[in-house]
Parts: sequence; C-alpha cells; structure tokens
Amino acid sequence: MKTQLLSLLLASSLAAPAFADRASNEPIQPIEPHEVTEPEKVELGKKLFFEPRLSASGFISCNSCHNLSRGGSDNLPTSIGHNWQEGPINSPTVLNSSMSVAQFWDGRAADLREQAGGPIENPMEMAFSHTLAIDVLQSIPQYREMFAEIYGTDQIDIDQVTDAIAAFEETLVTPNSRFDLWLKGDDDALTSAELAGYETFKNIGCTACHNGPAAGGTSFQRMGVVEPYVTDNPAEGRVSVTGDDADRFNFKVPTLRNVELTYPYFHDGAYWKLEDAVDVMARLQLGRQLSEEDIDNMTAFLKTLTGDQPSFAIPNLPPSTNDTPHPRPFD
Amino acid sequence: MKTQLLSLLLASSLAAPAFADRASNEPIQPIEPHEVTEPEKVELGKKLFFEPRLSASGFISCNSCHNLSRGGSDNLPTSIGHNWQEGPINSPTVLNSSMSVAQFWDGRAADLREQAGGPIENPMEMAFSHTLAIDVLQSIPQYREMFAEIYGTDQIDIDQVTDAIAAFEETLVTPNSRFDLWLKGDDDALTSAELAGYETFKNIGCTACHNGPAAGGTSFQRMGVVEPYVTDNPAEGRVSVTGDDADRFNFKVPTLRNVELTYPYFHDGAYWKLEDAVDVMARLQLGRQLSEEDIDNMTAFLKTLTGDQPSFAIPNLPPSTNDTPHPRPFD
Repeated sequence: MKTQLLSLLLASSLAAPAFADRASNEPIQPIEPHEVTEPEKVELGKKLFFEPRLSASGFISCNSCHNLSRGGSDNLPTSIGHNWQEGPINSPTVLNSSMSVAQFWDGRAADLREQAGGPIENPMEMAFSHTLAIDVLQSIPQYREMFAEIYGTDQIDIDQVTDAIAAFEETLVTPNSRFDLWLKGDDDALTSAELAGYETFKNIGCTACHNGPAAGGTSFQRMGVVEPYVTDNPAEGRVSVTGDDADRFNFKVPTLRNVELTYPYFHDGAYWKLEDAVDVMARLQLGRQLSEEDIDNMTAFLKTLTGDQPSFAIPNLPPSTNDTPHPRPFD
Repeated sequence: MKTQLLSLLLASSLAAPAFADRASNEPIQPIEPHEVTEPEKVELGKKLFFEPRLSASGFISCNSCHNLSRGGSDNLPTSIGHNWQEGPINSPTVLNSSMSVAQFWDGRAADLREQAGGPIENPMEMAFSHTLAIDVLQSIPQYREMFAEIYGTDQIDIDQVTDAIAAFEETLVTPNSRFDLWLKGDDDALTSAELAGYETFKNIGCTACHNGPAAGGTSFQRMGVVEPYVTDNPAEGRVSVTGDDADRFNFKVPTLRNVELTYPYFHDGAYWKLEDAVDVMARLQLGRQLSEEDIDNMTAFLKTLTGDQPSFAIPNLPPSTNDTPHPRPFD
C-alpha cells in the first residue's frame, strides 16, 4: 500500500507538467520571451527602426506603419507613404513576425533581413535608396561607431542595416497572453465564453491555417475558398512571386496574435470589426454561417491572444552633422 | 590665531556653495529636473502626445513634428502636415517649452494648454476638430477610465485633453547638460574652447535675448536688427497677434537648449549648420562679423547645452472599439 502510494507520487512528479501536455495537444503553442544574445545590435536596430532619416522625406520610419504603440501596425486600411501616397495593401503587424514562413503578404522576402530593405527604397513608401540611406548613416559619427563595434568595419552597408533592424524585430514577441497562461495550465485564465469560442475556432477548422505559436504565418492560403472574396484591391498575392497560376489570390495567413490591436483586417484592410472578420472567414474559407453567439465567443477568444506589448525606452537618435545629406520632403 | 582660523572656517562653511554663486552671476541658469506631482495625468498626457487618432488621418500625432527621439523637433525646415501639406513655419522643440513666455513663434498661445489644442484642428496640420477628437477618445473605454480617474467626470472635453498633454510636456525638461554642470561648480565640465565661446557669447550681447534657464523663450525680438533677415517665408511674427506695426517681424526668441539637436534653424528653418546660424545672428542682430575661431568656439559652447533627453517607455495606446470613428487619411 505504502509502496503503491510512493509509486504514484513518483510517477506524478516525474511526469511532464500539465501545461506541456495541454500545449502539445493544442494547435496553437505559447509564445516564449525572446532571449537577447546581442544587446548592442538590438539597440542599434531599435534606433534604425525609429529612424526617419532612412526615408527621402526625413519623416517616415519603420515605426510609422508598424507603430509599436499600436500593436505594430498603423490601424489604417492601407498605409500612408512618401508624399501621402496611398499604399497598395494593409501593413501587417511586425509583432511576432519573426515566426512567419516568409515576409510580406505575398512572401516575396524570405526573412526579416530581406524584408527590411524593401520599404526604404520603395517609391510608394520611404522613397529613398539604399545608397542614400547609407550616406546619411555614414555621416553620423555615433552610427559609425555603433556599426563598427558590431560589424567590425568602418564601412556601413545595407546588409548591416537590415541585419540590425531584423535583430530588433526578433525581440518583438508578445508572450503572456491570457490564452498562453491557459495553455500553460492556468484554468482560470479564460472565461467559459472564451473557451467556447476557442472550441468553435478549432471545430470548424480555423486552426487548419491559424496554427503554431503565432496562430498564423505558417502557410499561404487562398483568400476565398468556398466563396470568392470581393474587393477592389488589385493585389493578386503569391502568384506575383511564383508566377504559378495556382497561387493566384493566395496570401500568407496573418498571425492572430494581438488581433484585437491590428484592425482593420485582411490584406485590403476592408473590415474594421473583429466580429465581421470572423463571420467573413467562416463563410468564405469554411462555408459556415456562424450564429451571433458563436461569433461573439470566437471574438472573445481572439481577444485573449493579446500578449505583453513592447516595452522599452524611446530611442534617442544621434544628430545629423554638417556632412549629412538633407531630407527632401517636398521635392 | 586659532580663533581667526576657526572664524574663517565657519565663514567658509556658512557661505552659499560655489555653484549658487556662479549660476546667480550668469545670465543662463541651470535647468532643474521636473518634479511630477500628478503621475496619472502625465501618463495620460504621454499617450495623447503619441496618439495619431487625434488627427483626421489617424497618422499624425504631436510626436510627429515634436519627435522626442530627435530633440523634440522634426529636423525639417517646415513640417509635413495632413495630406503632406507643407507647413508655414519651423516646428519649435517641445523640450523645455514650459519655460517660454508664450507658445508658437508669434506667441499666439499663452501657455502649453492653449498651444496643444491648435494643431489638432489646424487644417494644415492634424486637420481634425476638437469635437471629432473627443468622439474618438470617448469611444475607447480605457481612455474614458483614465479621464474619469483624473478629472472626475465621464464626459471627456478638449480642456482635459490639452491639460493632460501640457502636464506631460512640462516633464520634458533637459537637466544635466555639461554647461549646467559647469554652472553648478564643476570647472572641468567645459573645455577652454567652450568657455571661450561662452565668453564671446556674453561679450558680444547674445545673452540680451538668450537668457534664463532655457537660454531663450523669455521675450519677443525683431529678426534682423542691424541688417534685415532675407527669407521667402511670409511669416510676420508677433504683429499677427497684436496688430501693432512695431511688432512686425518680431518672433519669440527660441531656446538654445539642445540646439545641437534642433536643426535646421530660425523660424524658416533655412540654416542647417549651427556655425552659420551663429554667424548670421552676430551680423544681423549685433552688427558683429565674427572670426572663424569665435564661431567655432561659440558653436562648441552651444553644443554643451544638450541635456538629458526624455527617457520613458513607449506608450501602449488602447485599441479602438466598434464605436470608434474611422480615420480618413485619403478623403
């Protein structure tokens, strides 16, 4: 009897903790905090992320459209670029973007490094060039010192710039959402309505695409499987990268992490209400007409995916010098 | 003999400390850290300062043109406003602005509270209205709670908004510049070139206008006393407030605190080099043609006025709700 009890106790203490069981059985896994291994590089990347001098106008930075005070997004249907040009597609959140299979809605950049160079030289966005951006940074002694310290050369290049920005962006993960607390074993972290919403989310098939730690970002999928998605946005998605007609209107599945903060929704930013986005997805992707109660519960569940938001001191950017090229906002 | 020594020692220890003597004999006084008495109001004001939803586009915040990563300025000759409109005048730094006799270059706002309401409804800047801005804030429960906590009412109004923004702006002082360390008695805080520059600065008369803790902001003065200032900027200065012809081309004397960070210079932002600004001021205001050495020393002195820059965690802005009016960037 005593031996049996001891065995039971041992078995219990040797077993994996409850949260590991739950998380490993669920299609969404908890987000873990990012371990910074190169703090100087992250600090440089943070400055560059907030650096308007990487744009022709001296006014637009990465943070303009991926605002870290606003869930890493600009909360606009499509973004405002150089000279107030209207962007072609909704700016995806930078939060947890390191977990995506590729970057941009069409996946045209393999990783964050490749992504970071794009907006700088996009005439619709920051409207600068890599050469001009480097000229600006190279003219500022504090930047020269930081780059030299990290990359061991006195010649800044665009690969260093995007490497540092990516290193900063990799820190932008959002652990400790209420859903993650639940995944890790805290049964009280979710309400019954939220849990019911999660059950429906799984049962009707949302997790076929919205899975992994980011609840998305792991695959490209057709927008409008059962019914076509009606939009006046001309973006064609993945086909513009692969040239394969089968990829027409395939887009990278967006992360649902912090989705409460990253309205409006879809690649065209056409839907402002999370309830509407849930309804549209269920109908167009899964052929399901959800009840109002199901929609409300799923929306409640989705709001539990809001995790710890970025928290760090605003960067102080080093001043330009007499050698720094001037911004040209109105040319 | 012993008694005399004791008297001397006593007299010395009873005398005011050296720094007080120095500071009280100088035309510029040290900046003291701001004591926060209402931290909740300051925190709310910080959120509002970074809040793009106070603009019609949902893209422009106070921080867009008074960027706290860049000396509280945008480092552009004149600012970019709604729909990329070119602003009429250089955006002054918000740092130490609480020490100014009035706000704006022409002093048309008596204080920071009165100032803060201006850009929100200026069609060239944030292009919104006070009513619409309040509608946005009132639709967001986290804002309603913060305002209710501080102002004791569930009806947000524009006076509360500008009061909170002003309370945050009052914290934006920049103590501990090297010049202030010198003022407080640290003889090693300045180089001999910087001290020589400061002596010239005083001797030729700059301190007639650039005085007080902010080294400016205490009076309105004519731009171009000895020689006219040539510019294609149509701003006429103080006369537009007083209607008095004697005030034509009188502008508020800008602070020289952090002047290294707040280029380009003058109300039209026409000069990018601090050396040029020194040269122009000496010639036009004081009728002095300075040597290159004097200009270099004065520039070196001016760079010692850079103090502690704002340091706080980026604010997290509460999300809009289904009731929040949408931004209209492209209407």
